[in-house]
Amino acid sequence: MVNKLIEKIRKTNAPIVVGLDPMMDYVPSFIKEKAFKEYGETLEGAAEAFWQYNKGIVDAVYDLIPAVKPQIAMYEQLGIPGLVAYKKTVDYCKEKGLVVIGDIKRGDIGSTSAAYATGHLGNIQIGANTYAGFDEDYATVNPYLGSDGVQPFIDVCKKEGKGIFVLVKTSNKSSGEFQDQIIDGNRHLYELVGEMVDKWGEQLVSEGSSYSSVGAVVGATYPEQGKILREIMPKAMILVPGYGAQGGKGKDLTHFFNKDGLGAIVNSSRGIIAAYKQEAYASYGEAGYADASRAAVIAMKEDIASALA
Amino acid sequence: MVNKLIEKIRKTNAPIVVGLDPMMDYVPSFIKEKAFKEYGETLEGAAEAFWQYNKGIVDAVYDLIPAVKPQIAMYEQLGIPGLVAYKKTVDYCKEKGLVVIGDIKRGDIGSTSAAYATGHLGNIQIGANTYAGFDEDYATVNPYLGSDGVQPFIDVCKKEGKGIFVLVKTSNKSSGEFQDQIIDGNRHLYELVGEMVDKWGEQLVSEGSSYSSVGAVVGATYPEQGKILREIMPKAMILVPGYGAQGGKGKDLTHFFNKDGLGAIVNSSRGIIAAYKQEAYASYGEAGYADASRAAVIAMKEDIASALA
Repeated sequence: MVNKLIEKIRKTNAPIVVGLDPMMDYVPSFIKEKAFKEYGETLEGAAEAFWQYNKGIVDAVYDLIPAVKPQIAMYEQLGIPGLVAYKKTVDYCKEKGLVVIGDIKRGDIGSTSAAYATGHLGNIQIGANTYAGFDEDYATVNPYLGSDGVQPFIDVCKKEGKGIFVLVKTSNKSSGEFQDQIIDGNRHLYELVGEMVDKWGEQLVSEGSSYSSVGAVVGATYPEQGKILREIMPKAMILVPGYGAQGGKGKDLTHFFNKDGLGAIVNSSRGIIAAYKQEAYASYGEAGYADASRAAVIAMKEDIASALA
Repeated sequence: MVNKLIEKIRKTNAPIVVGLDPMMDYVPSFIKEKAFKEYGETLEGAAEAFWQYNKGIVDAVYDLIPAVKPQIAMYEQLGIPGLVAYKKTVDYCKEKGLVVIGDIKRGDIGSTSAAYATGHLGNIQIGANTYAGFDEDYATVNPYLGSDGVQPFIDVCKKEGKGIFVLVKTSNKSSGEFQDQIIDGNRHLYELVGEMVDKWGEQLVSEGSSYSSVGAVVGATYPEQGKILREIMPKAMILVPGYGAQGGKGKDLTHFFNKDGLGAIVNSSRGIIAAYKQEAYASYGEAGYADASRAAVIAMKEDIASALA
């Protein structure tokens, strides 16, 4: 899967992921009103509003970007109808040719981790038939349970040509509480996790590529740690959240990339999907929310390109 | 929620959780055949088989136990229809008066963790109406992202009278890769996480109780660590997986309990729900699978009682 991702990054010249993390406050009134008229003020109505909102954004930006990252929590808060909207969003983005990174942060052990991997990246045999549950291209994975939790994902990735991004150093303020602890008196926990990502990644490097389909999540808000982790995990694509709304800037991103200009893909969620709520894009108004998102993607692309130049 | 859990443990005299983690191999043929006849060999058919299988077990054991722990991964592997079966299982167990621990191992940051908490433990306002997504009583939470990831769950628990179990030392073989690392040269990462659980727990101790609705997950397979963690987290109910099929025995469990005889609740999944596949219960046959589960619960109750005596 990493080859497909890199090919799309090269083609769009944009190491950018748009985070499809809808919140009701972001969804323009005209979309909500239509959805509620059809489905009532219900979970189904809210889920329909999320889906129509996403569709508008995807239609407006899909030609500019290689990938999207729907955050499943936002859909899961609406229960089953929300997850139906998540699935619709995944399917639609794949139809549009985008690489879909399911931001699911799952992680368990043995057969349970295998079940998550099957549900999100794999196929399940039922009698004589084969089905896919959610069928994202990539999933994010939490490493706290160790190799037992990660290996089942890698096994499914091998079989299905999919990939994972393992949480290493997350973008949030308190990420250091555990991740920054000093291990053995010589390095941080996130460095040890990075070493494991590098090791796990050996299993998913395809011929002729210098990258693995085992990637890592490292927050834009921690550029110094990004620099260290870039060296520890040379084969890993780094998925970088925290750009924009969380405070990360283009210049913070340079260390996340390798010398080949690849190796990182930067996520922005709110900054793109709710761009019309920012002063800079206010002139688009609610009706032009999707065009505002397109303008924000173009600005982000330029910000990153100039930082990397 | 911890008060309700303790009351039910006292009433049943059984610090036991039955893990409702269905796998197709466990489901008796007559259930699968009926489900496939009605829904075809589809995700819906498999989900119906899981649900009917669960219902049989719950009907057979609900009067003996305080709580169940459905593992959402097993349902998630069947995509949306699987999650519908998960929701049905949660609702049915609550109808039967059981405390439902959603084994979801979620964990993210800020608004995203809040969305998971809302979806699983809380309520969401849509227009003039309020809805619950999955509405479990407890959820398991992954701590790797730090307080930013856990606090939103605690906030929802406060509001809704719910609880969480935070992963501290998991039952699997490789759990030590990160959890056993020595921090600051003086203690293990799992001890630091335990200290945080104790601290987080202060927010959810109800009047007149010595326990908090912030509990911890510590595997039966690590009794020595259980002893240490019992001291670090005196207020935490410890959810103990790894008994039975994973190798934990009754005698390994004593250290997980406080001197009041409370403080832990021991999970068994396969050992109960697939009891009819064990030699000891083979005489029940497929048709008697639920009665075999009942017999296995009684045996587990006796094993734990004699270990604690």
